[in-house]
Order: sequence, then C-alpha cells, then structure tokens
Amino acid sequence: MDVSIIAIGGYEEVGRNMTGVKVGRDIILCDMGLRLDRVLIHEDVELEKMHSLDLINIGAIPDDTVLSKVNGRVRAIVCTHGHLDHIGAIPKLAHRYDVPIISTPFTTELISQQIQQEKKFGVENNLISLTAGSRFKITEDIELEFVRVQHSIVDCVFAVIHTPRGAVVYANDFKFDRTPIIGAPPDFQRLREVGREGVLALITESVRVNEQGRTPSERIASQMLNDLLMSLEDERGIIVTTFSSHLARIKTIVEVAERLGRMPVLFGRSMERYAGTGQKMGILDGNFECYSNRAQLEKKMKEMMREGKELYLPIVTGHQGEPGAVLTRISDGKTPFLIEKGDNVIFSSSAIPAPINIANRYAVETKLRMRGARIYPNVHVSGHAYREDHRDLIRILQPEHVIPTHGSIEMTGAYVELAEEEGYVLGSTAHILRNSQELIV
Amino acid sequence: MDVSIIAIGGYEEVGRNMTGVKVGRDIILCDMGLRLDRVLIHEDVELEKMHSLDLINIGAIPDDTVLSKVNGRVRAIVCTHGHLDHIGAIPKLAHRYDVPIISTPFTTELISQQIQQEKKFGVENNLISLTAGSRFKITEDIELEFVRVQHSIVDCVFAVIHTPRGAVVYANDFKFDRTPIIGAPPDFQRLREVGREGVLALITESVRVNEQGRTPSERIASQMLNDLLMSLEDERGIIVTTFSSHLARIKTIVEVAERLGRMPVLFGRSMERYAGTGQKMGILDGNFECYSNRAQLEKKMKEMMREGKELYLPIVTGHQGEPGAVLTRISDGKTPFLIEKGDNVIFSSSAIPAPINIANRYAVETKLRMRGARIYPNVHVSGHAYREDHRDLIRILQPEHVIPTHGSIEMTGAYVELAEEEGYVLGSTAHILRNSQELIV
Amino acid sequence: MDVSIIAIGGYEEVGRNMTGVKVGRDIILCDMGLRLDRVLIHEDVELEKMHSLDLINIGAIPDDTVLSKVNGRVRAIVCTHGHLDHIGAIPKLAHRYDVPIISTPFTTELISQQIQQEKKFGVENNLISLTAGSRFKITEDIELEFVRVQHSIVDCVFAVIHTPRGAVVYANDFKFDRTPIIGAPPDFQRLREVGREGVLALITESVRVNEQGRTPSERIASQMLNDLLMSLEDERGIIVTTFSSHLARIKTIVEVAERLGRMPVLFGRSMERYAGTGQKMGILDGNFECYSNRAQLEKKMKEMMREGKELYLPIVTGHQGEPGAVLTRISDGKTPFLIEKGDNVIFSSSAIPAPINIANRYAVETKLRMRGARIYPNVHVSGHAYREDHRDLIRILQPEHVIPTHGSIEMTGAYVELAEEEGYVLGSTAHILRNSQELIV
Amino acid sequence: MDVSIIAIGGYEEVGRNMTGVKVGRDIILCDMGLRLDRVLIHEDVELEKMHSLDLINIGAIPDDTVLSKVNGRVRAIVCTHGHLDHIGAIPKLAHRYDVPIISTPFTTELISQQIQQEKKFGVENNLISLTAGSRFKITEDIELEFVRVQHSIVDCVFAVIHTPRGAVVYANDFKFDRTPIIGAPPDFQRLREVGREGVLALITESVRVNEQGRTPSERIASQMLNDLLMSLEDERGIIVTTFSSHLARIKTIVEVAERLGRMPVLFGRSMERYAGTGQKMGILDGNFECYSNRAQLEKKMKEMMREGKELYLPIVTGHQGEPGAVLTRISDGKTPFLIEKGDNVIFSSSAIPAPINIANRYAVETKLRMRGARIYPNVHVSGHAYREDHRDLIRILQPEHVIPTHGSIEMTGAYVELAEEEGYVLGSTAHILRNSQELIV
Repeated sequence: MDVSIIAIGGYEEVGRNMTGVKVGRDIILCDMGLRLDRVLIHEDVELEKMHSLDLINIGAIPDDTVLSKVNGRVRAIVCTHGHLDHIGAIPKLAHRYDVPIISTPFTTELISQQIQQEKKFGVENNLISLTAGSRFKITEDIELEFVRVQHSIVDCVFAVIHTPRGAVVYANDFKFDRTPIIGAPPDFQRLREVGREGVLALITESVRVNEQGRTPSERIASQMLNDLLMSLEDERGIIVTTFSSHLARIKTIVEVAERLGRMPVLFGRSMERYAGTGQKMGILDGNFECYSNRAQLEKKMKEMMREGKELYLPIVTGHQGEPGAVLTRISDGKTPFLIEKGDNVIFSSSAIPAPINIANRYAVETKLRMRGARIYPNVHVSGHAYREDHRDLIRILQPEHVIPTHGSIEMTGAYVELAEEEGYVLGSTAHILRNSQELIV
Repeated sequence: MDVSIIAIGGYEEVGRNMTGVKVGRDIILCDMGLRLDRVLIHEDVELEKMHSLDLINIGAIPDDTVLSKVNGRVRAIVCTHGHLDHIGAIPKLAHRYDVPIISTPFTTELISQQIQQEKKFGVENNLISLTAGSRFKITEDIELEFVRVQHSIVDCVFAVIHTPRGAVVYANDFKFDRTPIIGAPPDFQRLREVGREGVLALITESVRVNEQGRTPSERIASQMLNDLLMSLEDERGIIVTTFSSHLARIKTIVEVAERLGRMPVLFGRSMERYAGTGQKMGILDGNFECYSNRAQLEKKMKEMMREGKELYLPIVTGHQGEPGAVLTRISDGKTPFLIEKGDNVIFSSSAIPAPINIANRYAVETKLRMRGARIYPNVHVSGHAYREDHRDLIRILQPEHVIPTHGSIEMTGAYVELAEEEGYVLGSTAHILRNSQELIV
Repeated sequence: MDVSIIAIGGYEEVGRNMTGVKVGRDIILCDMGLRLDRVLIHEDVELEKMHSLDLINIGAIPDDTVLSKVNGRVRAIVCTHGHLDHIGAIPKLAHRYDVPIISTPFTTELISQQIQQEKKFGVENNLISLTAGSRFKITEDIELEFVRVQHSIVDCVFAVIHTPRGAVVYANDFKFDRTPIIGAPPDFQRLREVGREGVLALITESVRVNEQGRTPSERIASQMLNDLLMSLEDERGIIVTTFSSHLARIKTIVEVAERLGRMPVLFGRSMERYAGTGQKMGILDGNFECYSNRAQLEKKMKEMMREGKELYLPIVTGHQGEPGAVLTRISDGKTPFLIEKGDNVIFSSSAIPAPINIANRYAVETKLRMRGARIYPNVHVSGHAYREDHRDLIRILQPEHVIPTHGSIEMTGAYVELAEEEGYVLGSTAHILRNSQELIV
Repeated sequence: MDVSIIAIGGYEEVGRNMTGVKVGRDIILCDMGLRLDRVLIHEDVELEKMHSLDLINIGAIPDDTVLSKVNGRVRAIVCTHGHLDHIGAIPKLAHRYDVPIISTPFTTELISQQIQQEKKFGVENNLISLTAGSRFKITEDIELEFVRVQHSIVDCVFAVIHTPRGAVVYANDFKFDRTPIIGAPPDFQRLREVGREGVLALITESVRVNEQGRTPSERIASQMLNDLLMSLEDERGIIVTTFSSHLARIKTIVEVAERLGRMPVLFGRSMERYAGTGQKMGILDGNFECYSNRAQLEKKMKEMMREGKELYLPIVTGHQGEPGAVLTRISDGKTPFLIEKGDNVIFSSSAIPAPINIANRYAVETKLRMRGARIYPNVHVSGHAYREDHRDLIRILQPEHVIPTHGSIEMTGAYVELAEEEGYVLGSTAHILRNSQELIV
C-alpha cells in the first residue's frame, strides 16, 4: 500500500500550513492555515469577504487545487493546534471537502468560531473533538492518535497517523516543555512507544531549527514576568501585552496580578475570544474581567483612571503594534486609559521579524515612549522547538523519512543539515519538498 | 562680540534641521526642516493642515520656541539645499520671522513651491536667490557667502557666515564630488582660503561619518546605471525609480534612455515638481515627458502598453515604497502599466533604514516579484560625506570649534571621535549639542 | 571645597576602568582595569612581563600620567569587584601610589593573587578588606561606604564616597538582582537613604544601557541550567563551560550535578583560582574537585573516561574559545577527555561581541561539532544593568550630576539620552567625559 | 548512455570544490579545491606537510574516496580558474589519478607552482593548457570546450563538456563583465549557441545568488580606485592592499600610480607569484617592481622611507589581515616602512565574512589606526555572479537540469528558488546535491 506525503502549503514559507498524507487512495489533510503577511502587504484586503482563489493567488492560503491531480479522496481534516497559520484557511477551503475536521477540544472551539465569522462561504463540516492521548479510526486502514506536546497555545498535539506501513507523525508546531504552566509535560513515553512500533515518516516544523540548544520552558517566561512585575510593585500604571491565544502566559499574568493586589482586566477582541473560550472550557481560571466592545471597554478604562491605575493590571492586544489593537490605540491617545510619565508597558512577546511587524512595533513603541512610558520588551520564551529538541524527536521516533515543513528553504535546508548529522540522506531519507509536490515514502 | 551656536533641531535626530548662529544680538537661522518619520508613525496626520505647535509636539518640526529665551533678533533664514529635512518646516515656521529667506536658485524655487502648497499659514517672507560663489551682506557685521559643494540634490552649498570673529561654516549636508554629473567640483580653493582667513566654528552633518573612507562620486552611480541599462538592451519592460529631487541621477537615466533608443517618461507628482523645475531653470535638459495628473498619466501608460514597453523608459516615484507613489500603484496592478514576467525594475536609491521605510519597500518589492519582475536594487551612491571626507573638511578649514549636527547621539558622538583624532577636545573645541542648547564659541 | 571627577580610563571603551574622585586636594582612585582585547590583537604580548608605559601605549591599561597634571595627592585605591577590567592593571600601576587598596573581601583576595603573579613590578600596597554595608574613613573629609549590589561576580558593591559636598557614588559595574543565588538582594533601603542624604555625582557603567527593560535575575540562568541539565539525565557526556569568576553560576552547576548524581569536577587554572578562593572563603560550598596542573588534570580525565563520563560533570574554562583553555584543548583532541558523538557541551555564557572572541568561539564550536558534540549556547543572563535598572538607580539616588563610564561614546551617549528623559541636561548635569578629562562638579 | 553528476566537494560549503561528470564509464573531474578556513581553525596545521586523509578528515579538501564506489574511470581533471578553492587540493589528490590536468594557460601556470611547493606528494600529472574558445577531445565521446567568462582572477572559463547526450556546463565561478579591465567580454554568442545545441546540465556556483541585481563591472572598481587615489594626490604615504591573484585590479592600481607619478612596488610572496606569473605571460604589463624575499623587501622599504613615501605606491598582501602578510607586519611596526599620522591605507577588497577573517582584519585595521592611518575599505566589486546574472545564464543555456554548487544549503537552496522562478522543479530538474551524492541526469 503506497503512502505519500503531499506538500500543499507551508513548504516554502512560514504560514499557510497544509499537508496531505495519502494512504492507498485515502487522504488525510493536516492543517489549513493562513499566511497573514501576504494579506498585510495589500492595504485594502478584507479577508472575511475574499474568495479562495484570490487568496490562493496572493499566496495567503494553501493552493489545494493540487489535490485534483492526485488520485485520491480526502477522508478527514486534522488540526493539531489552533493558531491561524494552521486553521485560518478552514473557512475558505474546508467546505470543498465533505469530511470531518478532527482536532483537540480547544482547537475545535477556535475552528468553530473561525467558521462563524466567515462571510463568504458556508462551512458545514462536522467538527470532531479528540483529546490528547486518544485515538480515532478514520478508515479501515487509518487510525489517528493525538500525543500531547506543548506550544505557545494550549492543547497542542502531534497527529500520529497509523497506517499499515507504520505511523506518519505530523509534528507541526511543537516544543518540548518539561515544566509547562498549563497541562502536563510531553508524553515522551508514548512517543518512545510510537518510535518502537515504527515510524514511516516524520513531518515536522522547522521555524527555529537554526536556534542552537533547547527552547527554554514556559516556566522561564513565567519567572521573568513574576520577577519583573514584582519589581514594579510601587509603580502606578502597568500594562502587559501578549499573544491572546497564549493562555499559559495569560494565566501567569493573572496570577501575578493577584500577588500584586491588582485586578487583571483583559482588553481587546481576540483577548475576549481566546481567554473567554479558555475560561468557558475550564482551561484558564482566575478572577479576571474581559472587555472588547468599544463602549464597555471605554467605560471600564474611565473607571480605572478614576479609581487609580495602581489597582489594575490591564492585559491588552497589540504586542506586534497591530493597527486597531488596544495598545496601538492607547499609544495614539485614543482611549480613556492615558499613558503618563513613568507608566510601564511590558511586551510579553517577541517581535515577529517581518518588515511590516517591525514597522508597526516601532511605531507603537515610539509613540508610547513619547508619552513617557517605560518599555520592557521580550519578556518571553519561544513556543517552537530549537535544534536539540528536534534532534531528540528524531532520536525518539527514529523515522524512516524526515520531511521538514513550515519554513522557507533556509529553514527546511537547515533541518536537513541536522538530519544528516543523525544519519539521514537528502533525497533518500530526508526530503525538501516544495508546495504542490508529492513524495512517495 | 559674542558668537554663539543655537541648536534648534537636528541635534538629536536625522531630520528637522535648524540651527541659529548668533553674532552679537543678530541671529541667522540655518534651515527649517521636517522630520518625516515622525509624521509617518501617525496614521492620520495631514501635514498641510496641521498647526506648528502640534507638529513641534510630535517632534516633526524644530522647536523654535527656544529662540524666545535668547536675547536676539532674527535677521535672515538661510537654506543650503532644497531637501525637505532642511526646508520642509518653512511653511510652518518662517512666517513668525519677518526676514528674508536666502538660498541658492534651485532651492529658492523649491521653497517657493513649498510655501504655495501650505494650507494653514500664509508665508510672505522675501525669497532671495544667491548663487554659489556669491556673497550677501545681512547686517553691518554679518556677510553670507555660498561655497559650492555637492549632495544628492543640485545647487548645494556651504553657508559661510562671515563675522567679526571669523567665519562660521554651516556644512549640512554635503559630499565632495570631484567628478559630478551636474555642475562643477567642490570649490576647494575657496574653502582653503576660508580656512586661512580663520574659521571660528564648523557646523556639519554627521549622517554617514561612520562610513569609512570616502563617498564615491555620482559618476560611479552613473556608470553603474549605464552598465546595467545597456545590459538590458534586449529586454521589454524596464522601470527606473529614484529620488525625484536627484536631478543628476535623472539626467543620467534620461541620457541612457537615449542611448537605448527609448523615450524617457517621468511619472509622479514630485517627479513633475523637481524635474519640471530643473527643466524650467535649465539645469536638466534632454528630451523627456512628465506626467502626474492621474488621467494624463493613465492615458500615457495605456499608450505605452499599446505601442510597446520596449519603446519607453518610465522613471517613477516610489523608490521607498511610499503608499500612493507610482511604483506602489504599479505593484498593486492599479495603473494601466502592467508588470509582466521578466520586466525589470531598477531602484536607483538605497532603502532608508527606518522601520516604516523598510516595510513599505518590502511590500512593494514583494508585490513586484509576485508579478514576475526582476529587481535591481541599490544602483546608487550616497550623497553624504563619509569619514575621510569629513576629515578633509576639518583639515582644510581648521576651525576652532567643530559642532556636528543632523544625527542621533551615536552619529554626533562618532563625529567627535573623528575630531579627537584631529586634535579636538570634547567640551572644549568639539561639542555635542542637544536641541535647544546654546553654545558660546 | 571643590569636588571633581577625573576620567582616566574606560571613558572611551569597554575595559581598563579607572576614575579619580578629587575632594579638595585628595584623590580617591576607583579601579585600575585592563583592556584585554588590546592585548589580544597583538600576537606576542606577554602581559606579565610588560612595562606599564608600553601597555599604556597600546591602550591596554589606563593612562594614569594624567594625574601628574592634577594638583592633588592620591589617598586610596578602591575596587568594587574583582573582574580584570577593574583590577587587572593594579600590578602595573598601583606601586606608583603609596596608598592602600580598599575592596570587598573576595575582591581583595583576587587582587592579592594578581599582585603575586606580576613579574615586572613589586607591588606592596596595603590591602584593606571592607565588607558591603561598612564604612572606612580615608581622610578627615572623605569616608568610603560599600553598598551591596550584584554582578556576574560575587561581593560586588557600589562605592559611596562621602564628601562634605555630598556623596559621590561609583557604580561600575552592577545589576539589581532581587533574587540572587549567592548573597542578599541589593540594599535598596540604604541606597534610598543615600539619595535622601544627597548625592553630588553618580558615576556609572553604561555597557548594557541600550538593552531595553530590566536584566533578568541570576535565578533565571539557574532555572535554565536546571531545566537543561535535568533534560539530559540519560545522556553520557556533558560538559559545562562558564565564567570562572562567576561563583553563583558555578554554585548552580555544582548543585544540579548533585541532583543528577554526577560528580562536579572543575578544570582549568582560573577555575581553580576563583572557585578555590570562593571555597576557601566559604562563599562557594558543595562537594567538588578542581584540577589545573596539567598532569593531574590529565590523570583525572583518564579516570573519568575509564569509569564512565556519565558519572561526572566537568566544568571547564574556555567559554570564549580562548586558546589554551581546557575546552579549546578538548576540542582539539589534546586531552584524555574525548568528545564522542552525542556528547553535550553547554556554554553558560554569552559570546563577547568582539571580533577576536567571535573567531575563537567559532573555532572551538566548529571543532566540537566536527567531533559530534551537541552545543547548547547562551544558557546565561547578563550581569550588567539594563536601561530600566539604570533609570531606577537615577530615581533612587537623584544625583545632581550623572557621569556614565565603561563604554564607547555610543554607550555613554545612550546613557545621556536616558538621563535626559529623567530631566538631566548634557553638559550641565549629565556629562560625557573622555579619558584624561577632569570635570568639576 | 548514462550521464551523471558526482558531488565530491563544495556542495555543502564555500571552498574545496570538486565535481565529477560521468559519461558512460568515463569521469571528468572538475576542480580540486581547498577549504582554507578548515585549516585556519586549527592552530598548528602545516598544509604542505599534511597527508590527504587528514586533510579530508578536517574537511579541508574534497573527500574523493567516494569515487571508489562509482563504477568508472577518471579520464581528465579540468580546472576553470586558478583560485585555491578550485586548484588547492591538486597537490594532495591529483597524483591518485594518472590523467592530465587541463586548464587555461594562466591557471596551468598556477597549478604548476602549486605542485612544486608540495612537500608530501610527488605530483606528475601531465598539464595541458587550453585557451578560452578552444576544444579538446578527451575520449571518443567527450569533448571539452572552454568558453570565456570573467571572475576576480584572469583567464576564467566555463568548461563545456560535450557528450552524446548534450553539453554539461561547469560554471564555477564566474561573473559576466561586459566591460572587463583585462581580456574580452563574456562570449555570449558562443553561450547562446551552446544553449541552442542543447545543454543537459548546468553546474554552477551559488556564492552570491542572494545578492539582488547584477554584479557591477570591474570597471566600477577601477573607477573608484582612480577617483580615490587621485583625490589623495597631495598625500604622502599611500598603501594599497588587494587580492594578489586579481591581476585586473593590480593593473588598475599600477596605472593610477603612473598617473600619480608614483612608482608602484609590489610586496609579498603571493604578489610576486601571481603578478610575476602575469608579467611573464604578458597578461600584466606596466612598470613595477616586486619584492618578497625578506631582506630585499626590507632594503627596498628603507629606500622608500629615505627617498620619500610620496614617490611610491606600495601594493601589498594582507587585505584580510592574514598573519605574516606584509600589511600585518607593517601594522605591527615590524617592517622598515613605517605608518605615520595621515598615511592612507586602501583595502581594494571586501572582508570575507568568516569569523577568523573578520578578527584578523579587525586586528590589522585597529593597529593601523592606532598608528594614525586613514583607512579606505571596500574599494571593490565582487567577482561572483549576482541573482540576475544567474537568471541570464539559465535563460541563455536553457539547461534540462540545474545543479548549484559552491555553497552551503542556504546558497544552493536560494539558487533553487531562483531556478523555480524560471520553471525548474526541485528534485526533478533542479537539484540540491550533498557531498558524495551522485545524480543521474
């Protein structure tokens, strides 16, 4: 029975991930992601209203038309976590396939919200929630298993696709966090078993493979935030901005707020979406409020200004300086929450190193500084595996084939160099695929 | 008779240049410039309609309120060349002073246009045109002399302000081009004489003082453009984008177009303004057309597409990817001139290393590439003096005091290190001033 | 009574720190440091045998001849911590002054060792040990007080020089670590008191003033090392290299070794010197061995190879790839400790960003990789204050004057920008001094 | 008849180039190069005395043992130019093959010298000199043709290997210089014919494929040198350092020396070797002297110091700060030619961006500056094709397969991205090979 890997998106870029795993004639689609920076370079694109083909043309979503050349039928869509570069094209592409979308519970909830926002297409795929550690039979020959790992969003897993020829492991994205803030450590025991059972192919991200060593644990970010915030005990205004979807980080901030005797208040649409979902699902607890509706947000901010900034810890959107985000509006003086000399703004994030992000971030920082803010950037650790984590994964799984994805050719090339150190051979057992290529393994 | 240097703008940044030279009670103001990136970080600023104080507050124009603390009266405004970071604040500030604005002929013409565009203030200062090599008596004690140098705009001079205490030389900006494309080489003979007569103070730009060696001649840029364009002889579409105000560069491009048998056509509002002015004044000759009005521009482009791109060499605005510029609109497919696979786009400019410029430039290049364009960046040489040119100027003038301006503290600091190599002493004969400081020399 | 600050060394560079504080006619010298990279660019310099004037000429040690122009007499030499860029010139310069050298106990011990190694000069100054929190009367008018701070070496203090005109605080180098691994947190309470009593001048390092935010605590490095080493539990060979003088870091490594059930063994001459001193003085405890004599070192390594690498955790010199250091010799295969495929080498340090360091580090890493080592770089946090720590110090002390030192003009200039944000004025209350300048405050 | 490409060296690095082209059972070896930086990271390697296998082990020369696994016999060694990364391993490897070494006349001469210096092996291969534009029949089925291109060394060609299946073009290294200083422009006409006749495979360097646009002509470097040197007309000491093998550059410098009325004098062993060879062969004319023997060199320098530096233009080795090179010794004050304040040192080269080169270069520049020298770096243009030159080559030859070499995976990967823009498909018609892989085309 032939097994092949179909590179659909993410094999030439960071973003718009999508991979097909074909077993006999059955195809499992892993991820349907969005490449946001291809949207951002166009000034007047309204994502929600755009047609798939236009988005394919500007390189914003995967070009799944390649599937029409493959003699197979799609049987399921699988998503391993809820970031937009993995689920963001579902509203545009999933309706073409009459198959279920299988993902972890938190991911499923986010997919469901994505679909509801879509204005152009009606997406009616069945959403199936599968917890880490569980299995799901997709066809007679194909069984899906989710194995727990970590990332900068909760409920992230490897998708282990069991086939008659061995397992195909889809590991995009991940980090190995032995001391996570939310949830349990990686399920190394199960991964080792999977390795012993036999892995035909490992498909893995390569975003940070050029970073030497290991990714530090989220606990390090938590500790840094604790130290920093506690050192600001006597200050008045403190704002923290971070990834809305990073519930572990938000959990830390909420907890330190409590230690500081400040009320944590979340501001911004995506803060409400992700944290609200996390709260509802019992992933994120703690006593915090959340505002995104403009009128309510402004009302709350006025109250904070009136009662005293030192009583609150606002947690806001805008860590990349995104136009329209709460922090950006604060930096423009367009909200009731005013920056005063000596106020502290903590970026619990890294600046994404793309030119438009850098420019946005520069603008927001400059404007905050001009108002007298003290800036604390990069109180953060990465959610992507570094080089030695990748090496460990290879050693644990001992796959016959390795196929790096989620990166430009520099990144997938760098992964191949790592794989060569572990005995793999380019073109034979290590593969650089390009979007729309199929590899029979 | 006391002579002092009043740092008004440009002493902490690149942009918004303005310096006062006070001789007894009389003050000569050198430059009134704009810092464009302080405008750009605010999304909805309309420069033409803004009030001076608001622009001062966001750091976009010099804070000339410092002059109210100085016991003196302004007697003249002097501008040494026509770039916006030297003349761009005239519409906002000059009307406060009932004095003439003295500048070289091309600069005067540009200032006049600036004033006409202003929507907020009526500026009625007398404009006096003074050619390089000429002198003008401002007061009994103060005579102004213009000495020819070069820059990335024509008709650039040093302002030598003769005072009873010796000359104050304002050298902001300049390069020493021994083989310029337009005009004669630097007037080294006169500079040496000025040096021998005695220079009390040299106020000089520091933008590129950290570049080792000497700035290459404009002839190098000209040769590179010639070589490149001639190598594209058999190609169809070729577009060149460059600084609109850089008439020497445009002259080169127009001349190569003729060698190639292509009609040079200038597109864009600022192309029309600068090149039109240059043409009218006899600085820029050659057979070219110029379009900025949108309807006419589109008509011309349609004609070019119909008759064949290979007959034309469009020279367009947008080398920094500025929103709304012609090249940006071309990259968005919003003009009749369509980029086809293999078309060639030459950037005869360097990307200004500020985050917003980098982002704009990235966007326009990416969109051009997605349409199949071949990109030739950086066919350019700088218009600013490098380290050894600065050293030569010090050796020629042998000023008692050196005062670097037009730069952040890294740049003015680097200039001081150079000056120290030549025997100057920080705080004694070499000075780092900050905006609003006065130095008695 | 005039008080002045005499910039002797470190005001134009990182390294060779030396400052004079003159009170009336009495001078206190703070630090006598070495600039190692000025030695390194010369291939055949033997530091121990060189004469002071030659070292001054190549810029390796401070040019204290400036003191002959100052009408004053030196009364004491004060060192605030034991790094070479602060004490390394004592063997070459201290004998010229018949005064005591006052420093914290650990620093005193290191100075004593420095002096013993010197081959050219006999240094017989009296060494006085003063603990953090203590005071010492130097003259009728001058009293010295040490206030506890942190740095990448233990027993680091601010030198508070009490004068009739207020305190002069010498804060070079420091970090504020609220949760240090060795010793107590910064003595903020006393610093606040000093601020209230009145500070005439703050002389402070500027090495990392351009890093935004705050320096993370040493506890973060400790946590990262713990996480990383514990993740390598099942590996065979593990080597850690770090700064020999960084006893807090070594303490962490020794403790994790114990958790791992491995015997920590220190290798290298400076390891023996610093850790031995630390052990002797009761600063560093724990059960570890230490080898620097080549024969004993090789014997121990043979034993380790024979008994099994997995029983040991070698902690070695060579984190900058220094020629002759233990790690460098290991990478060359010149020691009995052999790198085998999969062995792990942890750099608990950052690469010093000077070209020669970068080259050495590159060479050692490349050779280790060629032998199959896994490399974990940068498991480290800085020992220097970041921008917001510097701001806090200014706010706590509220000095009349701030004088940045220990940096190039980019760094001291950046400090001035920070000071300006806090209301200081360059040339008036904030000062950029250059080596050999005197500032009357 | 099977044709295959055997990647031996240079497919994972810059340096140690070596490729096999197998036609049926016959193998043509292209290049046998040295990777110098692998020698440099070891402190005590004496190249001339080392054995091949040791040099293979440290990655310094190609691992040609792979050929033992290939069922074929070597019929010729072909070198397209004389740089060490292409011919430097001939002394170590060529004696294993009883075949002629075919190269252009200047290259042949350099190979001959290489062989004579070798101390370990006796190399007795027949050296055959073939001029650009000529053909040579190697076997019944294989004919070699040299086609003229340019590089930073004279007499550089493409090796066109005509086979029954079409041509295999070996294009490593090259630039397209339409206005070269020595020799004629690229033979585009013949290249176009070769393209029309049919090219089975293009093997090409990828060193600068990530540089956008086109490489400027050597004429630009010549012009910059002219401008700079003429601007120094009235100075006393001027030294130029450049690549010894870059005869076109040396020709320019010698000619400007004549314009300046200065006697050009070459110093250094490799200056003598290359320029002497060039002179002997009539490639480099002009009136200059050349010294490398230390006694004679010192005698000449003493004479220059005595008669006046302003009469001479020394052209010296050491542009990368190589230990032992003439400029390095000058910077150490170890030659009779003394640097005085204001002397000018021109680096007509770029700093090779490897850590050890950067460190060496830093050291030499620092020492020169400390002696008062003015430094003019980077008066240079590259000898490697930029991105659009590579695109042109593809368009001219229209090869069935493209195989980038001479680069790390980032570089060969970047070439593949370019090839994809031209319609090639990775793994099908565009290939990333790794050392020791064979590709059947």
